[in-house]
Amino acid sequence: MKTEEDQLVQKIAKALASKGRRGLALGAGDDAALLAPRSGYQTILTCDWFLEGSHFLRDKHPAESIGWKCLARAVSDIAAMGGEPKHFLLSLALPQTHTGRWLDRFLSGLARAQRRLGCQLAGGDTTRSDDIQINVTVVGEIRRGRAVLRSGSKPGDLIFVSGRLGEAELGLRWLRQGQAARHRNGPCMRKHLYPEPRVILGQWLAAQGIATAMMDLSDGLSSDLPRLCAASRVGARIETDRIPKVQMRAGENQDHVDLVRLALNGGDDYELLFTVRPSDVRRVPRVFRGLPLSCIGEISRDRRLVLTGPEGREETLVPRGWDPF
Amino acid sequence: MKTEEDQLVQKIAKALASKGRRGLALGAGDDAALLAPRSGYQTILTCDWFLEGSHFLRDKHPAESIGWKCLARAVSDIAAMGGEPKHFLLSLALPQTHTGRWLDRFLSGLARAQRRLGCQLAGGDTTRSDDIQINVTVVGEIRRGRAVLRSGSKPGDLIFVSGRLGEAELGLRWLRQGQAARHRNGPCMRKHLYPEPRVILGQWLAAQGIATAMMDLSDGLSSDLPRLCAASRVGARIETDRIPKVQMRAGENQDHVDLVRLALNGGDDYELLFTVRPSDVRRVPRVFRGLPLSCIGEISRDRRLVLTGPEGREETLVPRGWDPF
Repeated sequence: MKTEEDQLVQKIAKALASKGRRGLALGAGDDAALLAPRSGYQTILTCDWFLEGSHFLRDKHPAESIGWKCLARAVSDIAAMGGEPKHFLLSLALPQTHTGRWLDRFLSGLARAQRRLGCQLAGGDTTRSDDIQINVTVVGEIRRGRAVLRSGSKPGDLIFVSGRLGEAELGLRWLRQGQAARHRNGPCMRKHLYPEPRVILGQWLAAQGIATAMMDLSDGLSSDLPRLCAASRVGARIETDRIPKVQMRAGENQDHVDLVRLALNGGDDYELLFTVRPSDVRRVPRVFRGLPLSCIGEISRDRRLVLTGPEGREETLVPRGWDPF
Repeated sequence: MKTEEDQLVQKIAKALASKGRRGLALGAGDDAALLAPRSGYQTILTCDWFLEGSHFLRDKHPAESIGWKCLARAVSDIAAMGGEPKHFLLSLALPQTHTGRWLDRFLSGLARAQRRLGCQLAGGDTTRSDDIQINVTVVGEIRRGRAVLRSGSKPGDLIFVSGRLGEAELGLRWLRQGQAARHRNGPCMRKHLYPEPRVILGQWLAAQGIATAMMDLSDGLSSDLPRLCAASRVGARIETDRIPKVQMRAGENQDHVDLVRLALNGGDDYELLFTVRPSDVRRVPRVFRGLPLSCIGEISRDRRLVLTGPEGREETLVPRGWDPF
């Protein structure tokens, strides 16, 4: 005779079963997971909240997207250090009304993400709650000494970002305004619902020793760049003209969205922000496997954060990205 | 200029700062934690929800207890495999009203637990929510091949439990009834508010090779023993007389609590349930560092779960422990 909790755990384990063990000695079903770290490698560990109301809306976000995104955003922290994602733990608190069809769809999105990201379920915890609450822990690995930290930037290093900034935020706005269907196949909607953490790029930058510091952009450039600078004890000067913004065709921006502010303050892009020594800049391609890499400015010795506008006007960069408080 | 989230993260990191790195190459403050696993060891990984309403009550449980218990119960899963706890990630979602004095008290309880359990903060995630939501991931380690799983019990093995069962459940009842103060210094109240995971016992049983299977009792014996038996593909016969129950002085049980049912179905004890080959039984002490170890029955080949009462009456053991659904 099984408890309802046991039945739910079995359903999850079945939906997310994968072949091969990839260093997993023992997965879901015991008190804890047992992993066999590779010799010469370090373990990278991160966890991320994904909560109804704060991070997604029950009646707006498809369950498949919630499943995909809860893993993708946690994996992005592994990518940000240059690591390879290996395993994850899924903590799921659900209303009783959501243990049937909704859970099936959630698990199908999550199963797609784990295949895509090469990440295997190793365990978790399941309980009941009024709201949908998710917490994902991801374990990755990286060759000893190769991890790229936030703290390695030096004055004179050039600042790069991958992709285009603000896309996910615009996707969210459209979703809130009930315009998701109209933009369904566009990059903004896709990036908001099914973001792709930059795992391959992060691993390449770390393996090549190109990035002196790196982090992922989850809260928005204006909030995240100051964190990298604080960790490295440096400042930064960036140019609004060089920031890769959302691309729109002429006349498409009917709502007159300020694409610069969107790129500075929009969250959830999961692009990589990294710095490069001047002598290594020529090693950074303009496009990496279809993904544009843009130089947006330079690290400075003085600890200020300066944004230079199109006519050379300077302003202080103020953190206006996502802050839950 | 720091976001409110950054300030909160700093407060947490400061309250839980500890000396020495114990295999931690990089802790809170970067995208992810970086651990250096010891060669010849496996990594044990577990996570646990601790949610207001389901696992504790905001207006009944002291913040110090919530801080202590969120770590202690997750560490108990490491103990259940015989491992040594090393690091933890703290995911904390709080109402804005709880980021001041309440958080200080929570962190002081958690700091005590981490010192006591030898476990170091390695990172986490902090966000806002209406309810207090906690998720703790613990990383432990164990020498390769030494972990004790749930699946190793064989017919004829004897079944042991540590401590006394039902104490924590009785503590919870008293707390709900507003009688916590009257019982403050008793073992039941202490065990409910500040449970001590059996880390040393678990490590000893694993290192000595005495336990053939092991798990911790978190939901109650009647729910947890069937899980161990299912994993080992065996059954069990246990005797109510031999189950270590809450001890009360004559006349103290004024509410006529059924101490047998309490021991069978009460959750949150975090004692260890383990099985031992008949040839190893003499190696199990009656008391291990002040903690009683009791033989309560035997593993059987047939897959039934049988409870034998005082007059030899048999009944089927039905899972009536904690089930969130």
